[in-house]
Amino acid sequence: MDRLIDAIEATQNPSVVGLDPTEALVPPQVVASFAEEVRDSVDSPDEVPAAQLAVAFYEFNRTVIDAVAGIVPAVKPQIAMYEALGPAGVDVYTMTCEYAAQQGLYVLADVKRGDIGSTAAAYARMLTGVEGHDPWNVDAVTVNPYLGTDGITPFVDAAKQADKDLFVLVRTSNPSSSELQMLDLADGTKVYEHVADLVEGWGADTIGDHGYSRVGAVVGATHPEEGKALRARMPHTFFLVPGYGAQGGTAADVRGMFDADGSGAIVNSSRGIIGAWKKNGGYKESMSADDALGLVFETSRAAAERMRDDLTAVL
Amino acid sequence: MDRLIDAIEATQNPSVVGLDPTEALVPPQVVASFAEEVRDSVDSPDEVPAAQLAVAFYEFNRTVIDAVAGIVPAVKPQIAMYEALGPAGVDVYTMTCEYAAQQGLYVLADVKRGDIGSTAAAYARMLTGVEGHDPWNVDAVTVNPYLGTDGITPFVDAAKQADKDLFVLVRTSNPSSSELQMLDLADGTKVYEHVADLVEGWGADTIGDHGYSRVGAVVGATHPEEGKALRARMPHTFFLVPGYGAQGGTAADVRGMFDADGSGAIVNSSRGIIGAWKKNGGYKESMSADDALGLVFETSRAAAERMRDDLTAVL
Repeated sequence: MDRLIDAIEATQNPSVVGLDPTEALVPPQVVASFAEEVRDSVDSPDEVPAAQLAVAFYEFNRTVIDAVAGIVPAVKPQIAMYEALGPAGVDVYTMTCEYAAQQGLYVLADVKRGDIGSTAAAYARMLTGVEGHDPWNVDAVTVNPYLGTDGITPFVDAAKQADKDLFVLVRTSNPSSSELQMLDLADGTKVYEHVADLVEGWGADTIGDHGYSRVGAVVGATHPEEGKALRARMPHTFFLVPGYGAQGGTAADVRGMFDADGSGAIVNSSRGIIGAWKKNGGYKESMSADDALGLVFETSRAAAERMRDDLTAVL
Repeated sequence: MDRLIDAIEATQNPSVVGLDPTEALVPPQVVASFAEEVRDSVDSPDEVPAAQLAVAFYEFNRTVIDAVAGIVPAVKPQIAMYEALGPAGVDVYTMTCEYAAQQGLYVLADVKRGDIGSTAAAYARMLTGVEGHDPWNVDAVTVNPYLGTDGITPFVDAAKQADKDLFVLVRTSNPSSSELQMLDLADGTKVYEHVADLVEGWGADTIGDHGYSRVGAVVGATHPEEGKALRARMPHTFFLVPGYGAQGGTAADVRGMFDADGSGAIVNSSRGIIGAWKKNGGYKESMSADDALGLVFETSRAAAERMRDDLTAVL
């Protein structure tokens, strides 16, 4: 986790931009501008819409990355948005990760993988690559704990080998997360607290120079009290905090997820940054694709600066 | 789930072949035979090993699919093995699914996705496609329940829309699965039983002609007693049963996961079928790639027939 913490210190900004493009978040003239280009690259006409969206996602992402590089330490591309488009989308996912890495950003792949040991070892090659080739270009992955230790160990081993990290779901930001995570156990704890203790243990022999292990935890901004309690319960576990902004979490809500030195967590916002162009008032349907991307650049940069300032004000 | 159950009845075989290729499971001369072919298709030489494996996986899969089509009703490609190779692997994943579908097989995509509602909706397009184009060609996906109902509903909606299915992890086959799934809850049940009740509820309004809903459950063959109890607890939930063969589960172990009519479950074997060529005694390093694939064909077909006979003997 040292590389991420160093990047946060360098930018003085514990926030990460979620690169989660959708049809609704990319200006339509940007999508339309690729109609000609993709027509020659597909095998059949019915592939055009997905291929066109994929190319538009990449152009959109590059604009956002250019806008926020130097302001934020990291980006978090959510692979679901890309997988929705099929292999063309997955290509763009890896291209996005590579471009972000080239701009000096720490790339947190939000993939929420999880499986039995032998299968987890295959997924963990997202961190280590294949025979000297690294097709994914990511610095960390998110992982689901439902399968227990043997589903996690391969990721921890890969993280050690490649100087990378993982973040395990503990208390997610969504409304239904309580159905499992908040269940009362017979021993008086709750399921998410039991998972928290496992996560702290999974990282125990990977603690870095800054006092945090390579095994982080996902703790939603929408649960401020539980986040604060988890901060005390997991002293060597760095937090990835989703749910800020569009999902309702505020700077005050996440304050307790940081340690006494103002470290220990990084807060994600996706729609609040990459969708800022829709709320700025400057957008017009008649804009050119270039002008729309220019607006995306300015508004996402301003939103990232605002989020940084909001967070640092409470730390 | 009706399409899967019809396919099981047509083949008189409640088993599914896991298409989980690895370097160790594909004959080396098959991988070597693609060295020339891929060299022109990659951007840089360090991509050759992954590209070569990807093409070899496809050739291997086609051989296994040709061998088992007509004997088994379904295949279950595990996406982790393909993602390990990067985008080239994901391409081959979708090509494998398409080829299997063309041979009349039900394709169960073992992807174990799971996320908050808006993200789950993106993942669920694996079932519905993008604007009339279906890049994934799968009939069902596996899903992780850790995020609760709002992470599942988009998959249920997509399954209804596209006449497809999902299988939610309940009690997985791996040794560490008990760390979370077997925890005692304050109300006297265990975590996996609580998840089981949620799964039965998630499927409640999608029950088909055969009495089973579109929302199946993953229940490991390595837990025969719990599987039997779950069969009674989840009367409208079809089971996907991994862990047979290489992981230790036997036909006797899975008997209790079927209903009184011998329906209600499908049992997966991966290594036991696709790796049968390694145990047959007929393999020689000096074999040609074609002869090695011929051996894969014969041994995987024989292993699939043996598994069918072992299962039907106890039902």
